[in-house]
Amino acid sequence: MATINVPQHVPSPKEDCDQLRKAFQGWGTNEGLIISILAHRNEAQRRLIRKTYAETYGDDLLKELDKELSSDFERLVLLWTLEPADRDALMVNEATKWLTANNLVIVEIACTRTSLQLFKVRQAYHARFKKSLEEDVAYHTSGDIRKLLVPLISSLRYEGDEVNKTLAKSEAKVLHEKIAKKEYNHDDLVRILTTRSKAQLLATFNHYNNEYGNVINKDLKADPNGEYLKLLRTTIKSLTFPERYFAKILRLAINKLGTDEWALARVIASRAEIDLKHIKEEFYRRNSIPLDRAIADDTSGDFERMLLELIGHGDA
Amino acid sequence: MATINVPQHVPSPKEDCDQLRKAFQGWGTNEGLIISILAHRNEAQRRLIRKTYAETYGDDLLKELDKELSSDFERLVLLWTLEPADRDALMVNEATKWLTANNLVIVEIACTRTSLQLFKVRQAYHARFKKSLEEDVAYHTSGDIRKLLVPLISSLRYEGDEVNKTLAKSEAKVLHEKIAKKEYNHDDLVRILTTRSKAQLLATFNHYNNEYGNVINKDLKADPNGEYLKLLRTTIKSLTFPERYFAKILRLAINKLGTDEWALARVIASRAEIDLKHIKEEFYRRNSIPLDRAIADDTSGDFERMLLELIGHGDA
Repeated sequence: MATINVPQHVPSPKEDCDQLRKAFQGWGTNEGLIISILAHRNEAQRRLIRKTYAETYGDDLLKELDKELSSDFERLVLLWTLEPADRDALMVNEATKWLTANNLVIVEIACTRTSLQLFKVRQAYHARFKKSLEEDVAYHTSGDIRKLLVPLISSLRYEGDEVNKTLAKSEAKVLHEKIAKKEYNHDDLVRILTTRSKAQLLATFNHYNNEYGNVINKDLKADPNGEYLKLLRTTIKSLTFPERYFAKILRLAINKLGTDEWALARVIASRAEIDLKHIKEEFYRRNSIPLDRAIADDTSGDFERMLLELIGHGDA
Repeated sequence: MATINVPQHVPSPKEDCDQLRKAFQGWGTNEGLIISILAHRNEAQRRLIRKTYAETYGDDLLKELDKELSSDFERLVLLWTLEPADRDALMVNEATKWLTANNLVIVEIACTRTSLQLFKVRQAYHARFKKSLEEDVAYHTSGDIRKLLVPLISSLRYEGDEVNKTLAKSEAKVLHEKIAKKEYNHDDLVRILTTRSKAQLLATFNHYNNEYGNVINKDLKADPNGEYLKLLRTTIKSLTFPERYFAKILRLAINKLGTDEWALARVIASRAEIDLKHIKEEFYRRNSIPLDRAIADDTSGDFERMLLELIGHGDA
């Protein structure tokens, strides 16, 4: 469930645009006004605002925001204002670049979006970068990590809830055998994780747990504990329990020595209209402190205000 | 360009359905009437006929055809009457089954459809088989062949005509190095073939030819000449010159000891509304006999009649 609050009586897109224009003009920028509008409009409303702004003033709202705002606050507002598929395309692209490389972001986007959403990200990637997403991911990775990431990001998993129990048993056995032999990059292990439906994988992992006495991710905590194994665990976790996965990302982002503002902005902007309510519950269950308090303790200024508005500060 | 002839004045879907219903009734089936209708309706018109038939008679037209027709003619009429994405989904599924396994069909569908068409095949696969296409392809293959087929069938290639010449040069070099060392299954060779856009690959292969003196497919005719190498060559040919690829498939299907009716039905039903005119030209260029004459010499009965109608018999 979403966390943003959209007012009962929403101003027309034209009125919103006039207010935004006003916020950009004169001495300094009125960040509070920008937050009060954009943080309280849903995806369709923000799209209409961007369209109306371009028609009315001949300027791209995103470029205006880019010009007027700065640092983490700017990044959060821009990510939030983008269409979800375009936002994801942008973030995956950054994740394949040298200075901002981040394979975890690639796994996250591949595993927590629906099949249709992931397809739209790939289309948006074509439109924005004149290349395919898998092309860039494949080019910027190698070895085992490429072997895992390319099929993950190219998948179109079946989304029905039908489960083949016989298959779950036999594939749990395959996974257990490969993990026991430390063949973590085995073709069949990668094939199962990158092609089976989420419902089927859940059944397979449950059978694994029942039959072999450990949750699969525990058995994947091998030594040496390299990036590939970490990405395997992220794959499993984000496919089967995305809310808990995101709660953990938020916890790590906040507890870090020096907050990870990029991770905060990414998760809040991506999930505020989807499942952030559930993520907040998972966060509280694990940290005994509400997410809004943890964020308020750890961030400041306009960045903090925007985050709190997006996570529905003041709600349950 | 398409080869089917749609009459200037097309009867209404209701009229077509009444005629088809008549063809199914009484003593024996009127195959000629079925051909005269279905072979002369385009995709949208056939879809409307299926819809109208179900609404009018409460029966599925495809099931009726299945009941009334038989053998190769039946297969051709059914393939033709299906929606293209559903037809492809069905054919790939057959190609992953033990008795009808055919990796060439998987490569063909992955490489000759547009990115959006391939995506729709994957959606149709979900709807029809309650599984993902890549899941079945991955499960039914292994080793090098899996390594090639899964990314091919999962690709969403960029379709713009932008070409990066520097990249074409450097990747032609990579391909040449790997082929010279007989490392045909090298990660980078597979990555290039399965992710780059068709325009980019064409530039890469042209550079390969200019720089190293052979077309790449000639260098891939190694000894021993196993299935994997054949599929690599099929990938390259069907990506860069689909019309010539299909002309060759038709030639092989006809020249076989015992015609390959499945290949004939597959290619004609899939391409009659797309590029069969061009395929016919390529066929003539290579065989010095027009496709319709070659087909007439090699097939018979209703199967022959339906094929000839679909390839625009009597046209140029």
